[in-house]
Amino acid sequence: MLVARFEQSVTANALRSYLAEFISTFFYVLAVVGSAMSSRKLMPDAASDLSSLVVVALTNAFALSSAVYIAANISGGHVNPAVTFAMAVGGHISVPTALFYWVSQMLASVMASLFLKMTVVGQHVPTYAIAEEMTGFGASLLEGFLTFALVYTVFAAADARRGALRAIGPLAIGFITGANVLAAGPFSGASMNPACAFGSAVTAGSFKNQAVYWVGPLVGAAFAGLLYDNVVFPSPAPESITNRPGVTEGVGM
Amino acid sequence: MLVARFEQSVTANALRSYLAEFISTFFYVLAVVGSAMSSRKLMPDAASDLSSLVVVALTNAFALSSAVYIAANISGGHVNPAVTFAMAVGGHISVPTALFYWVSQMLASVMASLFLKMTVVGQHVPTYAIAEEMTGFGASLLEGFLTFALVYTVFAAADARRGALRAIGPLAIGFITGANVLAAGPFSGASMNPACAFGSAVTAGSFKNQAVYWVGPLVGAAFAGLLYDNVVFPSPAPESITNRPGVTEGVGM
Amino acid sequence: MLVARFEQSVTANALRSYLAEFISTFFYVLAVVGSAMSSRKLMPDAASDLSSLVVVALTNAFALSSAVYIAANISGGHVNPAVTFAMAVGGHISVPTALFYWVSQMLASVMASLFLKMTVVGQHVPTYAIAEEMTGFGASLLEGFLTFALVYTVFAAADARRGALRAIGPLAIGFITGANVLAAGPFSGASMNPACAFGSAVTAGSFKNQAVYWVGPLVGAAFAGLLYDNVVFPSPAPESITNRPGVTEGVGM
Amino acid sequence: MLVARFEQSVTANALRSYLAEFISTFFYVLAVVGSAMSSRKLMPDAASDLSSLVVVALTNAFALSSAVYIAANISGGHVNPAVTFAMAVGGHISVPTALFYWVSQMLASVMASLFLKMTVVGQHVPTYAIAEEMTGFGASLLEGFLTFALVYTVFAAADARRGALRAIGPLAIGFITGANVLAAGPFSGASMNPACAFGSAVTAGSFKNQAVYWVGPLVGAAFAGLLYDNVVFPSPAPESITNRPGVTEGVGM
Repeated sequence: MLVARFEQSVTANALRSYLAEFISTFFYVLAVVGSAMSSRKLMPDAASDLSSLVVVALTNAFALSSAVYIAANISGGHVNPAVTFAMAVGGHISVPTALFYWVSQMLASVMASLFLKMTVVGQHVPTYAIAEEMTGFGASLLEGFLTFALVYTVFAAADARRGALRAIGPLAIGFITGANVLAAGPFSGASMNPACAFGSAVTAGSFKNQAVYWVGPLVGAAFAGLLYDNVVFPSPAPESITNRPGVTEGVGM
Repeated sequence: MLVARFEQSVTANALRSYLAEFISTFFYVLAVVGSAMSSRKLMPDAASDLSSLVVVALTNAFALSSAVYIAANISGGHVNPAVTFAMAVGGHISVPTALFYWVSQMLASVMASLFLKMTVVGQHVPTYAIAEEMTGFGASLLEGFLTFALVYTVFAAADARRGALRAIGPLAIGFITGANVLAAGPFSGASMNPACAFGSAVTAGSFKNQAVYWVGPLVGAAFAGLLYDNVVFPSPAPESITNRPGVTEGVGM
Repeated sequence: MLVARFEQSVTANALRSYLAEFISTFFYVLAVVGSAMSSRKLMPDAASDLSSLVVVALTNAFALSSAVYIAANISGGHVNPAVTFAMAVGGHISVPTALFYWVSQMLASVMASLFLKMTVVGQHVPTYAIAEEMTGFGASLLEGFLTFALVYTVFAAADARRGALRAIGPLAIGFITGANVLAAGPFSGASMNPACAFGSAVTAGSFKNQAVYWVGPLVGAAFAGLLYDNVVFPSPAPESITNRPGVTEGVGM
Repeated sequence: MLVARFEQSVTANALRSYLAEFISTFFYVLAVVGSAMSSRKLMPDAASDLSSLVVVALTNAFALSSAVYIAANISGGHVNPAVTFAMAVGGHISVPTALFYWVSQMLASVMASLFLKMTVVGQHVPTYAIAEEMTGFGASLLEGFLTFALVYTVFAAADARRGALRAIGPLAIGFITGANVLAAGPFSGASMNPACAFGSAVTAGSFKNQAVYWVGPLVGAAFAGLLYDNVVFPSPAPESITNRPGVTEGVGM
């Protein structure tokens, strides 16, 4: 059984899904981390400037919309370990597949950060930071809620019952992320994506507060998926996990 | 009769609609109030800064697009007591259902504001304010018109005769809201949403000018709905209220 | 013949079209003129500030997308006398109908400007201005080209041969307008809409450079329509003007 | 054979494709170069200001979305020699056709830059610049990756297997471009479009670093196209190049 599951995770289609996740996460992380670096290049204390907040929020909205879009029909367009975690918890993808998704996403994030470090001389790769007056628990709670909103939107966008609205799913996902950055960026960093936080931390060599960007988001993501699937918009007859018509096992957009 | 109406308002589908309104309004209010708080964190007198106006307007456009999107096929995606009021006045939802929508929206707004107050230490929850030189009547008139534009767009987006354009309805709703914030934010606050004004007022403990954010918007909303339904684009044969094929009684996107 | 044409222009559907144009133009002008006023409220010399340019450009992009959207299935969503002129030149609507469209658009623009003047105390209604170093001819040429780009996009969006892309037509129209404001706002004002220029001029009582905002845009618009219809994407068999299946005579989105 | 190929490149439909590429590239370049000029008009050292970065990024996102949209059903909406190069490498268009596309795009870019120089008195046409601390190789690498992301998104958007998501293809293309400008504008200029870099260089009379905006982008583009077509989402049975049902030979959106 376990072997069968694993074999299902290394078919040609599955491998293509991992590559699609790698590419989309690479694009997203490079844009997001790059925008923080370009803000600092133009204004050394950009982290406390309103224009810089607009720069990072627009980058999140634009880059995530596109990153989800290009992977949507291949891997489901997770681009985020928290989304993958929620999909696994909800039974939409198997645990082995989810692990491969995670590896692809983490690797992409680290490599995108390293690519920036290598090409952009004279700027350090920044990490997510928490406002001085906030507690780690408060920040984790806030990140958890922000990720809840993001993952809930992903589940809504992946729902085939959306009809004509399916067309703009990736935009809804990108836009809620942009809005959340504007709302919480100066407080908890508004990462909502453990891979993004991990990649920049590895490259910068500083894992301070890393737990904040993992615990809250994963809990929030799982809760969002379960709420959507079971309470808000339950399927009349849930499909079996091995029987879905998707291109690969990955589900999402 | 009244009992039958009420029973229609507590079916499983109806309860799911209220939950969907709660979730979407929570997301929207948290983003909008949060963005005003993060502006003030970075710049103490952000209320009189142009970048802050961009921050709040983008948040409105992005967050409302997504909030309407995720609730569209469940509750109709009102996310706003003024929209619900117009739908009730136009006979699209029954009065008991509308009341439950209102309770969900108000509760969500209060809880989102409290959540921000709790997690974000050191920043007060801001309330909507009117420019010194404006009268309360002028502000109410302006808020009334802004809400008129928003609700008219909601009715247009909910119209099944839109064809291919139905796909971008939530974006049109979010975008007109963002444009209105840019046009009137520094004058009347550009709330256009009584729940949002109420939630931040409860949390801040200040109900100054609260009437401005209720009277104008509700009147403007009702007028917009009646105009769209009866004059601009009347149905050839209006459907009976008890006969609609929607998932629940709620109508909207 | 002329009487028949005129009668066609006062049917119930035609009157609804004029109302739809009035409403959309009112929304658009209020947002655009309002955003210039709110910029000046927060920063007295906003006309020479980059954030103010972002404010006005986002307002154009957001408000025009929504204004075109809500009128699309009713009047064609012109929201602009230059668009109506190009549609009349191309034979898509009759001259009497075009004149009624113009009256609706001009009236809406004047009333939106007056509404702002009335409610927003302490701020003058601004008019479009040309950079000192530019000639009137250069400004007219620039406005003409900007309007050319806008109207060409309107014709492309109205083309039924677009397939799936029809869904985002109003966004393409709003986005090219926002981009043009960012490109040319500080030089020629980037009005691209004679009604908008006229309404603010009437309210401010200053018709300086008004010709710039009429001659260039009308010529550019007509040229764009003719180029699209006859050279870039000609119909295999052009439909007769009296035989179109649209809701009303107005054509557009 | 070669003659047949060439004849295929000068049919009426092919000529219309070149005109469509010319028009879209003209719109795009005018907006992008214009936005850099209007930033400098309002703020002489705009190149090192965060608001100016927002201005140029929004212009890219808005203008490219619209420019791709209007040409999509005619020429495929390349609007970029790098995209055309990748399409030719992947066998989607023939080499003679690609050359005509290039000529149209280059000519449009030069003419748009000249138009700006002629109408906007007192502002020089700016060229793309590389941050002092970066090497030419690093900048070329960065531009190459940014173009990789853009062209990969173009290939994904042009894929008929996208289903409902096809509708927002031009937005995904515009948004990844806007995000990339925010990420890398202050470092390598974030051109991602050799025509745009060429046109402004010709008009400004300075070809400094021109190779950076050609080598990286063309290599990145070709790699993106090959990766998408052959690895990430290969067709079950690739269509013959002479047998496609498109309006013209050009493929894209």
